[in-house]
Amino acid sequence: MSVVNHLPSLDSAYWPCYHAVMSESHFPYLALPGGDPAGIGVEILLKALRKDPTEATVGLIVITDGPLLQKSAADLALETPFVITVTNLAELQEAVNRRLSPILFSQTFVDLSTFAYGVINAQCGLAAYEAIKVAVEVVQAGIAQAIVTPPLHKEALRAAGIDEIGHTEILSTLTGTTKAVTMFETHGLKIFFHSRHLSLREACDAVTYQSLLETIIECEAITCSNPQGFDLNKPLAVAALNPHGGDGGLFGREEIEHIIPAIEEAQKHGINVVGPIGADSVFHQGRIGMWRAVISLYHDQGHIAAKTYDFNQTISITWGLPFLRTSVDHGTAFDIAGKNIADASGMVRAIEVAAQYLTEGI
Amino acid sequence: MSVVNHLPSLDSAYWPCYHAVMSESHFPYLALPGGDPAGIGVEILLKALRKDPTEATVGLIVITDGPLLQKSAADLALETPFVITVTNLAELQEAVNRRLSPILFSQTFVDLSTFAYGVINAQCGLAAYEAIKVAVEVVQAGIAQAIVTPPLHKEALRAAGIDEIGHTEILSTLTGTTKAVTMFETHGLKIFFHSRHLSLREACDAVTYQSLLETIIECEAITCSNPQGFDLNKPLAVAALNPHGGDGGLFGREEIEHIIPAIEEAQKHGINVVGPIGADSVFHQGRIGMWRAVISLYHDQGHIAAKTYDFNQTISITWGLPFLRTSVDHGTAFDIAGKNIADASGMVRAIEVAAQYLTEGI
Repeated sequence: MSVVNHLPSLDSAYWPCYHAVMSESHFPYLALPGGDPAGIGVEILLKALRKDPTEATVGLIVITDGPLLQKSAADLALETPFVITVTNLAELQEAVNRRLSPILFSQTFVDLSTFAYGVINAQCGLAAYEAIKVAVEVVQAGIAQAIVTPPLHKEALRAAGIDEIGHTEILSTLTGTTKAVTMFETHGLKIFFHSRHLSLREACDAVTYQSLLETIIECEAITCSNPQGFDLNKPLAVAALNPHGGDGGLFGREEIEHIIPAIEEAQKHGINVVGPIGADSVFHQGRIGMWRAVISLYHDQGHIAAKTYDFNQTISITWGLPFLRTSVDHGTAFDIAGKNIADASGMVRAIEVAAQYLTEGI
Repeated sequence: MSVVNHLPSLDSAYWPCYHAVMSESHFPYLALPGGDPAGIGVEILLKALRKDPTEATVGLIVITDGPLLQKSAADLALETPFVITVTNLAELQEAVNRRLSPILFSQTFVDLSTFAYGVINAQCGLAAYEAIKVAVEVVQAGIAQAIVTPPLHKEALRAAGIDEIGHTEILSTLTGTTKAVTMFETHGLKIFFHSRHLSLREACDAVTYQSLLETIIECEAITCSNPQGFDLNKPLAVAALNPHGGDGGLFGREEIEHIIPAIEEAQKHGINVVGPIGADSVFHQGRIGMWRAVISLYHDQGHIAAKTYDFNQTISITWGLPFLRTSVDHGTAFDIAGKNIADASGMVRAIEVAAQYLTEGI
């Protein structure tokens, strides 16, 4: 087998490096669009702000429906810690020049008289979307350097006439990004995904020599472009598809026919990658720090590992956008919205990782 | 769809209950065959005995090649804590009558002059096998009530002319058991497997209405037959096969066509079972105590969950044998055998669970 010419180039500048050595005068900001207001987004944002996960190394800009945030804070008896409220980019720029934080960028999209927690609502879908739009503008204007997101509700987006089903898709459209890549992070265990939203049978079909080689090259390029986020002395590790890596072909031949040849070809390109390693070992090994990152061959493989390890502290990081984006990886939890029982630790971790990443590396 | 008549009966006495309320005069024993002597078996047994995981609630009988055990103990500078060494069942019975523990049941199969750690050796395969045979005899004679096993090496078994590839198969043959069922246990998270050693594609094919219904009925029967090991107030939970449970058929139709109908049919039979639940949630939920046990639909699904949660403390429990059997779930680790660096915590946990199970429930 030989590598065809249209493989992504390792030298390509496609994968941006999000880290800039900050001058002392520069104070980075994170933009935090509020997510679906009918869900737990505002609650976990307010709770996360209470903990200040950034240790004041970066500033925070929360972008959401202002009157609804005030109502939620009152309903949940949560403090609103904002030192200033702004309503446009000029005011925001001025507040940022003064290094104020946290800042509330207030919008008004939701009619409070018809609002209810935990209900799909077109106004809420629209509010969530408009907050993301402003977050992108804020980053594109150079005011913030990364975006951190609480959950969206895809049905509410649909009700608002938004075609995209989530943040990654919306952010890709807004920035003209053609290839955004999701990575999970759980207490330092980093997991890339060869495929995600496919049935398990289709995910098996998607494990081909060519496509896996491309994924390995992609992961190498992403990690090498962002050395502050990865230990480049360690290899990437590819999980096996079949139990015990197929046990020499006894339980499946994908390892022999596709996975091993793809890894060997990548190694010939100088990529530090190993595998396939049985999926019951490779994530444990990643957990104890053996790998730069693990390449999961299907959605649940990496999801089970990360979320059984620590459900609440699993976050996702999106590579390939023109800016860093971290996110919680849970849903809007409509069933517990407005009850002040949501666990904010994923939000805390998403803010923390983005802040560390911008300032010192993960 | 209707249930066919040859489903296993819930009233069947097929699944033995291993727990007996012990009279004060009765002191239960565990039989511990030594595993492959060229691996880490003896090392982790000696280390586990040092910790006395049973807290003296049960007695321990280690069955292995005696001279080789002494050599290993000397090589590794580990104590041999045995209070008596016996070489046949009559002597063992007498030691047990005196409530002695730990007891060494010494055999002699290995020529020490040709022995080496970490090498496949027919003598070692034979020694491992003969120790298991004695363990079964010890239990069948009523001297011990359960078997706890360190790892075997299937190539060494093969070299010794043993056809079975592991403990479960050997124990099934020796006891005439036709259906042994493996369950994982990691800090209270209990996982059954609908299928195990199949390729991932074959595992998808194996998720059928009829077979899954049989698995659910089997898990119900096993758990209800052993109430000291399970919280029967909680439901069994079936993991989904596809990401997000197929998301209404968008990523696979097994949930709609097979899994949901099987669960609903089981519920009609009065079985407390729920699902399918997305695999990225169901094991986390099991970890925090929501389920009696989780039914994993394929090998790696449950293996990734258990072993990323805690690799060293994942043990397996075999149901369906005439006695309880617990086991470590790692291999012989030939690469580190004889070096005194093996982690014995799985062995400790396997002994602990068997002891608790016999005396008070897990």
